[in-house]
Amino acid sequence: MYIEGKNAIKQAIDAKITINKIFVDKNYQGRKDEIINLAVQNKIKFEFVPRVFLDKKSKTSHHQGYIADSVDFDYCELDDILNKAKSKGSAPLIVLLDGLEDPHNFGAIIRSCECAGVDGIIIPKNRAVQVNETVIRTSTGAISNMLIAKVTNLKDAISYLKDKGVFVYGCEASGEDIYSCQKDFNLPTAIVIGSEGFGIRQSLLSYCDGTLSLPLRGKVNSLNASVACGIVIFEILRRRLG
Amino acid sequence: MYIEGKNAIKQAIDAKITINKIFVDKNYQGRKDEIINLAVQNKIKFEFVPRVFLDKKSKTSHHQGYIADSVDFDYCELDDILNKAKSKGSAPLIVLLDGLEDPHNFGAIIRSCECAGVDGIIIPKNRAVQVNETVIRTSTGAISNMLIAKVTNLKDAISYLKDKGVFVYGCEASGEDIYSCQKDFNLPTAIVIGSEGFGIRQSLLSYCDGTLSLPLRGKVNSLNASVACGIVIFEILRRRLG
Repeated sequence: MYIEGKNAIKQAIDAKITINKIFVDKNYQGRKDEIINLAVQNKIKFEFVPRVFLDKKSKTSHHQGYIADSVDFDYCELDDILNKAKSKGSAPLIVLLDGLEDPHNFGAIIRSCECAGVDGIIIPKNRAVQVNETVIRTSTGAISNMLIAKVTNLKDAISYLKDKGVFVYGCEASGEDIYSCQKDFNLPTAIVIGSEGFGIRQSLLSYCDGTLSLPLRGKVNSLNASVACGIVIFEILRRRLG
Repeated sequence: MYIEGKNAIKQAIDAKITINKIFVDKNYQGRKDEIINLAVQNKIKFEFVPRVFLDKKSKTSHHQGYIADSVDFDYCELDDILNKAKSKGSAPLIVLLDGLEDPHNFGAIIRSCECAGVDGIIIPKNRAVQVNETVIRTSTGAISNMLIAKVTNLKDAISYLKDKGVFVYGCEASGEDIYSCQKDFNLPTAIVIGSEGFGIRQSLLSYCDGTLSLPLRGKVNSLNASVACGIVIFEILRRRLG
């Protein structure tokens, strides 16, 4: 994975993403440079290269003179997420993403989850956005403080969570009104957020313990996925705070 | 303003944005075409042009064979927003955006506001994102059902709203906890959302009747602007629904 630009590379270093090497515009050689200082501090190799080398490697054309060659994000196991909640002494709060596609939405969801104290996020291995440069950048550093598990099968993950005593709710337009529902969110809770275009797959919804929806007062019948996720997890947080 | 691509043009037509002419790839001439049908239905002129003409005009390189030449979005007056609430028989709920920059955030905010039944959005004329093609597309049609006023001075707009009995609250990290505050959101209410990088300008905050914040449980100290706006307006909606 290539990470381009000053801020994205800083955030990747913060997020403890393993970086093999940073390529730096050779015109920057010899000057006081934040990225080079960070590389030295974190024992990351760097190499000065001609600008055209970076231009050729760049996919965003916003490399600003820096491209980092990194290994993939270090995903965790489901149990790591449950153990994190246990070590905090609180009931787990987990978010599952069923086929999310937009990296900006994924980054914003990571940011919201971190802000709300969510213990971890679960994504599927296939047909969904993975942690990439845009996700890291959009999470504005939150990814360094968030456990993300990548699973082969979301159904199996839901079954596993249910076995461990977690209540799993799918968020969809025809669900039970979250504000008037009698669900006890102080219990271990996970929510499922669907994809931008199609919501949660019907086959997955049947695995959930219930559904949740937000009251919609307009003509448009759905919120942006990251906004919906934010509203639902903060409503759960509000109920937990009593 | 040029609007590119099938979906964006469909949404612009839905949003009643005045379109002078739609340029269509001449290879599409003679075939059953949704955009041409829509143009005919809505009495919008269209012209078949060579693909290279579209490629040259395009800024996104995703025109898909269609570029619409449209006039600017039809902004409303502050009173239109207050009158809309009056005609619904409900206390106004208004969102002011202080220097928002990202069109994706603006589009997502329009979508959330429409879903929550917000009466209107107020933006400043300068140093802030205006309604453009990306905003229209990101709002996924919600813009056709949302009043947006563009004002020279947000301070004057806040003063005007306060004169009309609206309570104006700035949303910022050090504000009063929205969940435990005793504010009566059944009264006419407006909230101010700050820019992505800098929040609400201090000079504007002093014009507000108070501040609101969300409890943050992580290490990252701010939410994405559109997510924060969504959480706050849905909390106000929740309180209004009792």
